[in-house]
Amino acid sequence: MAFPSLIIHLVYEIIENMPSKKDILIPGFEFAGMSCGIKDKNQKDLAVILSQAGKTTVAGMFTQNRVCAAPVKICQKHVKKNQVRAIIINSGNANAATGARGFKDSQKICRAVAKKFALKSFQVLPCSTGKIGVPLPMPKIISGIKKIRPQAKGFLDCAKAICTTDACIKTAKHHGKIEGKKFTIAVMAKGAGMIHPNMATMLCYVITDLKIQNPVLKNLLGESVDQTLNCLSVDGDTSTNDTIVMMASGVCGNKDFKTNSPHYKQIGKILTNLLEEIAILIAKDGEGATKCLRINVSGAASQQEAKKVAKAIVNSPLVKTAMFGCDPNWGRILAAIGYAGARVFENKTVIKIGSIPVFSKGRPLGKNEKRASIYLRKNQIVDIFVFLGMGKFKAKTYGSDLTYAYVKLNAMYHT
Amino acid sequence: MAFPSLIIHLVYEIIENMPSKKDILIPGFEFAGMSCGIKDKNQKDLAVILSQAGKTTVAGMFTQNRVCAAPVKICQKHVKKNQVRAIIINSGNANAATGARGFKDSQKICRAVAKKFALKSFQVLPCSTGKIGVPLPMPKIISGIKKIRPQAKGFLDCAKAICTTDACIKTAKHHGKIEGKKFTIAVMAKGAGMIHPNMATMLCYVITDLKIQNPVLKNLLGESVDQTLNCLSVDGDTSTNDTIVMMASGVCGNKDFKTNSPHYKQIGKILTNLLEEIAILIAKDGEGATKCLRINVSGAASQQEAKKVAKAIVNSPLVKTAMFGCDPNWGRILAAIGYAGARVFENKTVIKIGSIPVFSKGRPLGKNEKRASIYLRKNQIVDIFVFLGMGKFKAKTYGSDLTYAYVKLNAMYHT
Repeated sequence: MAFPSLIIHLVYEIIENMPSKKDILIPGFEFAGMSCGIKDKNQKDLAVILSQAGKTTVAGMFTQNRVCAAPVKICQKHVKKNQVRAIIINSGNANAATGARGFKDSQKICRAVAKKFALKSFQVLPCSTGKIGVPLPMPKIISGIKKIRPQAKGFLDCAKAICTTDACIKTAKHHGKIEGKKFTIAVMAKGAGMIHPNMATMLCYVITDLKIQNPVLKNLLGESVDQTLNCLSVDGDTSTNDTIVMMASGVCGNKDFKTNSPHYKQIGKILTNLLEEIAILIAKDGEGATKCLRINVSGAASQQEAKKVAKAIVNSPLVKTAMFGCDPNWGRILAAIGYAGARVFENKTVIKIGSIPVFSKGRPLGKNEKRASIYLRKNQIVDIFVFLGMGKFKAKTYGSDLTYAYVKLNAMYHT
Repeated sequence: MAFPSLIIHLVYEIIENMPSKKDILIPGFEFAGMSCGIKDKNQKDLAVILSQAGKTTVAGMFTQNRVCAAPVKICQKHVKKNQVRAIIINSGNANAATGARGFKDSQKICRAVAKKFALKSFQVLPCSTGKIGVPLPMPKIISGIKKIRPQAKGFLDCAKAICTTDACIKTAKHHGKIEGKKFTIAVMAKGAGMIHPNMATMLCYVITDLKIQNPVLKNLLGESVDQTLNCLSVDGDTSTNDTIVMMASGVCGNKDFKTNSPHYKQIGKILTNLLEEIAILIAKDGEGATKCLRINVSGAASQQEAKKVAKAIVNSPLVKTAMFGCDPNWGRILAAIGYAGARVFENKTVIKIGSIPVFSKGRPLGKNEKRASIYLRKNQIVDIFVFLGMGKFKAKTYGSDLTYAYVKLNAMYHT
């Protein structure tokens, strides 16, 4: 299994080092990614996202895990003041389970970044990802902060520096027009399987030159994340460091809009599509994954029940292994639907693999299984459709298959 | 990985065919296990448990899965009348997802068993386990029912006939005295991983000659199952056919007792120990498992939170793969504690692997990790202790590790 992944890595390295690679520019922002020595072999491990626009707005969402890392706690506090201008991210060390010292280290990092860019400490968000239970190598990070040089063309370097076990960088972008003015929304992310080093995490940054005031920005991000990244499950585990931050510089100069404006709907749709793209990239890059699974549930009696069913399917190890084996196993999907805790009836439930029905009216459609199996063999992004026939509510989840390589990666790393 | 499992099978076959194997006798009951042709190669696939005592009492617990098989629905109805005298079990076909026909087939089986043993239909519980989505081979089963011959010494044959993918039969027994009278409680079970054929299930039968009236019997079973089999998770999935039934013939002749009597406590303890034994047997025989995990949570702020934490750990694929790799990965255990949805504080949490502390006061105890790793390598039943320091509530869960063999078994079976 290591061979295809090696090729991906090599191809990535070639692409990454191609001089023609076009960077993503977002007016008002500068970026940097460099090596400060946390990781081996001069790999990039320190990143900065910097807004030069004084009126930048910010919104953030953070891990629900009760055991959350020191930097996450500080981010939550700083985001509330809505005056964030810089994000500093180190990879290779998550600064989690590091006690009081971890908290002081993250504060120290904020001060160093603030000093360098003439900001206040609370205008800096500190993020860390990587190994847990080990204190940050502070001298390396502080010396890195002194050296780091953000620039307009630094987006891809930055996206590279936030990665840990990722096989490739994860970005998505949209260039559009609002009131005749050009704007850009770009996303970079890393994650989200948790393996070597010990526990990784999902970090995601949404950067735009649109002008979006709070709390509109907060709503916008919340609604899009709810339909995409919050529906992503690589192994059902939640990390201590998961962080999503959106920054809007306002440089585009559009008029303010509210949550009931058509612009809200337009931007919301774009953002949701971008975050779906990121969710699929993360699922495809799940530990040892060979497939991205997209579970599409409709006809649920409530929104919550639609989500429950979609989550139960995407988290079922039996469904995940069946998908790895290209087995259109309607029985395991049906069992997951049954134990999800939603109101369902076997006789009303329809299950499709791709566009191929495999279960309907309480009975399997045996004749379609071969076609469904071929569909599974041919596709890297696999759609499972479930119609419950109980109401009008829908939900989607994203995940990956469960493979030998997953077990290998996760069993063979020793602390 | 197939080699050790082959050896287990061979050893089992040798033991099973040894003439010296002692059967379990329970006054008032007769048992049988035979081949009626559902499975290949004359494997046993039809079983009967029959009580000759007119005043037999019964209690049952069934799958919580909304998609539940026809025989389960009929069992639920028949158990309520408390006049059950016979249980008929077929393995090799679960009679699930078989629509209206499946329901009629199970009713027909009840009638055939009732006729043979001069009972009423509602005195028979029908159980099925095995492949789903395929109608029962009724002529084979009906002809098997005509031939089957229950006898006092049939317990082990019966325990064999209910198995599907089980590597060995699962039984536990206790002989004791009550009011100076001898009594026996014996348990047979199968399950509970779900693989070939398509979806298996857990079936468990508790048989005793004690006199225990309802609703005392129901309480007794409910409380013991809650602490044992309901805390068992091989892969987090719940099947459509899970069934636990307890029958008490009353032949022992003890006096009736209530839930506040010392006898209730005494019998409850015995029953809980027996069902814990069964839970461990099932976890050890989980698909591809090399270890049984026992998660012991204490110091939770509520009973529900203790259970949530214990379940989150035992279901975490990251913890399960770490255990397979003999990696005392406190970080993954801590993460599972954090996302369980219970009130916890990192600084109050202590994690032990076996008796070895690996995390305490918000920090890992790196110096103990080697010893913990040796403990994991040496033990097939692995204890993880978690002290939350938030209150006085406790919970245990049972599960298995996640291995290459699990993925292989589950990915490589095609419908």
